Amino acid sequence: MIPPGVTQTFRAIDVIRKKRDGIELSQFEIEGLVRAYTTGEIPDYQVSAWLMAVVLKGMTRPETAALTDAMLHSGDVLDLSSLPARKVDKHSTGGVGDKTSLVLAPLAAAAGIAVPMISGRGLGHTGGTLDKLEAIPGFNVNLSVAEFRRVLEVCGCAMIGQTAEIAPADRKLYALRDVTGTVESPYLICASIMSKKLAEGIDALVLDVKTGSGAFMKSEKDAVFLAELMVETGERMGKQVIALITDMDQPLGNMIGNALEVVEVIEVLRGAGPEDLRELCLETAAWMLHLGGAAESVAEGKRQSAKLISSGKALEKFRQMLELQGGDARVIDDIKRLPQAQHTMQLTSSRSGYVSSIQCEQVGTACVILGGGRERKEDSVDPAVGIVLHKKVGDRVTAGEPIATIYYNAEAKAARARQLLESSYKIEDSAPATKRPLIHRIIGDKIVGKSVISTPAEKN
Amino acid sequence: MIPPGVTQTFRAIDVIRKKRDGIELSQFEIEGLVRAYTTGEIPDYQVSAWLMAVVLKGMTRPETAALTDAMLHSGDVLDLSSLPARKVDKHSTGGVGDKTSLVLAPLAAAAGIAVPMISGRGLGHTGGTLDKLEAIPGFNVNLSVAEFRRVLEVCGCAMIGQTAEIAPADRKLYALRDVTGTVESPYLICASIMSKKLAEGIDALVLDVKTGSGAFMKSEKDAVFLAELMVETGERMGKQVIALITDMDQPLGNMIGNALEVVEVIEVLRGAGPEDLRELCLETAAWMLHLGGAAESVAEGKRQSAKLISSGKALEKFRQMLELQGGDARVIDDIKRLPQAQHTMQLTSSRSGYVSSIQCEQVGTACVILGGGRERKEDSVDPAVGIVLHKKVGDRVTAGEPIATIYYNAEAKAARARQLLESSYKIEDSAPATKRPLIHRIIGDKIVGKSVISTPAEKN
Repeated sequence: MIPPGVTQTFRAIDVIRKKRDGIELSQFEIEGLVRAYTTGEIPDYQVSAWLMAVVLKGMTRPETAALTDAMLHSGDVLDLSSLPARKVDKHSTGGVGDKTSLVLAPLAAAAGIAVPMISGRGLGHTGGTLDKLEAIPGFNVNLSVAEFRRVLEVCGCAMIGQTAEIAPADRKLYALRDVTGTVESPYLICASIMSKKLAEGIDALVLDVKTGSGAFMKSEKDAVFLAELMVETGERMGKQVIALITDMDQPLGNMIGNALEVVEVIEVLRGAGPEDLRELCLETAAWMLHLGGAAESVAEGKRQSAKLISSGKALEKFRQMLELQGGDARVIDDIKRLPQAQHTMQLTSSRSGYVSSIQCEQVGTACVILGGGRERKEDSVDPAVGIVLHKKVGDRVTAGEPIATIYYNAEAKAARARQLLESSYKIEDSAPATKRPLIHRIIGDKIVGKSVISTPAEKN
Repeated sequence: MIPPGVTQTFRAIDVIRKKRDGIELSQFEIEGLVRAYTTGEIPDYQVSAWLMAVVLKGMTRPETAALTDAMLHSGDVLDLSSLPARKVDKHSTGGVGDKTSLVLAPLAAAAGIAVPMISGRGLGHTGGTLDKLEAIPGFNVNLSVAEFRRVLEVCGCAMIGQTAEIAPADRKLYALRDVTGTVESPYLICASIMSKKLAEGIDALVLDVKTGSGAFMKSEKDAVFLAELMVETGERMGKQVIALITDMDQPLGNMIGNALEVVEVIEVLRGAGPEDLRELCLETAAWMLHLGGAAESVAEGKRQSAKLISSGKALEKFRQMLELQGGDARVIDDIKRLPQAQHTMQLTSSRSGYVSSIQCEQVGTACVILGGGRERKEDSVDPAVGIVLHKKVGDRVTAGEPIATIYYNAEAKAARARQLLESSYKIEDSAPATKRPLIHRIIGDKIVGKSVISTPAEKN
């Protein structure tokens, strides 16, 4: 911000040169660039040169916050102040079999928190929340802001897709980054994620930053760097943000594919489902409840979350949300109402031993090949296809035993997916010596614990 | 080059990513990028991202040569093989009062060498050869290639401006670099200079890389780096290239301004003129004669050059060139035929002592303010205005003694130029302890001496 009465002239070329030379940009310069680009006053070729300079020179924390802020305010920011509940959302950096959002929105809402969740579609080997929701017949992710608000008021959670009004600068910048080799920058990724999430008008955010062979951040170091950046950026913008660094070295849960993942979501909401998925949902929900003021501590949040599941309240919230958003809620009691693949194919183990690793990105790609994901943005998705894993890392297998089932609609695609899936399993004589933890670490708990959580009622 | 039968697909995004990640690009990739950009197949925004990656990540020697080669072959390359003489040109990186080209073209031609010189205009604080030539009434720098060739055949030298057919990729890239903060890269500067010079169809090139307060390369380190890059790039492309690192910490000679510089050129060609200008012309000519096969050694080239001046042969060659290119050759004997400024103003010293330094860029800017240069490309130039320095670094001055004369046509401009000129002079009690040499060092003499010069007749 420039003080009133002071005139500063914004010149794109100066901003590019400064970033190129590693000089910190002011909030005025970053705001000017984002505003001028969004309105079309400066051309793509200047912004792409600037983006490349950002990729190679990085950004300071104040610059990252200024960029996030400028992108956030390039469009509408939802005003949910009329809702008495605290607004808390979660965001995952993406992985294979990651369906926690569908569990967490109703679960946190069942605890009295408002969850205004705006999600994306799958791209590449990772799935997307919108595609999973759309596997439920009738479910409408394209609500107007007024409809979104109404569902939130009635139900406490609502799940929709990006609207044209939210963070238009991010859409324009992302399209340019995609074709200029400037996607891979933690600063730009942080600003892109945080601007969209903070435009939801939330008070707090729980980030799930994935690391491992199926994540964008393959190394834990990169995941931690991005997580710290997002937590600090949120903090600078007056929001409570916490990040869980979680494992994506093998798929989460057992089911991959849109309708199959809805089945697993229902299982978890019924108190069953695979251990890793259930555990991650409870941990994330615990933080959402704690940050949302519904639980005194994270431990208390976890106990409460487990209770909301065992009592069936979380599942009922899920049912209510499906009904309010036009979805066929009968799928909860009759999963056959979900899209069904025409064929299945068993994958058996060629040898006895222990599963020592599952190349996670390959499993995601196998699902894309089946038609369950997108190679390009414009591709359509087959909700019925997917993969169910019967064996995960550390499990004992005997020769000839089924390790996975492929759900498919096209023979040729199934053959290619099978090959990829087969090669992703590594089976050795002995069990792996160490097991990767599900939650590697938590970033921001000290900040949140110290400065924010103590007096949640006073915030906002 | 890819071997016949091998298909490689060129994707701009891959080339951008590789350069971003510091991976060496192949000749195929660089050629593909330059070709696709010149023909408009890839957009500005991809190329500007790539340019920024080049600025920040640099280029290897083979990459720099491949870029130069691709830009060179984006347009016409003159074929001067019908001329029996060896073709040698010189190029300066630009400075203040640098009028050596106007001496060197006729001087080298008088020694039997062909000098097909294509030059540029002044921009910012530095002057341009074309502007100086156009101070001579009638002189036409816009010859067609056929006319250029004819003048060369008759006279041995010809001096023109850039044509649309030569290195169009450079023109397009330079315009983009200018607005995206990607001018300042030695690799891109090298490719820009060398592609245009080698398009002249020359056998050898003498580079004059300036360093000091009036040069683009302020530090000697940067000047040497660029010089080595250009020499090695020329060498890789089969040309003999030598670079003199010369001083531009104060203006070259005493006169700055287009018509005034022509006066000083005529003085040097008459065997007079200031010592530094005369010396640099002889040194540069010596190398041109040596590389052009007209002198066994550089020392012999220098002796011969001095003789061509004292005999009047170089001046006669200059006269012949003026006549062939439509210029009023009578200016040689009557400098009053050159454009004359309406007014002059003396600048006197406010104290006694010694000139310890002259901020050279400021002197150049003072000349631009008078109207003798351009702030923007589209500005026109007043050929008559300029500055004559009466005192240079190391000279003794007494209080009230004239140190410079301003030639001007507008009072207000003269006042501003005077202020700048005054502040550029630093006068101290004692003479500077050390004097910067005129020629700091020579780059490429070992390469040329060893591998090329020994058998000039076998080359090309």
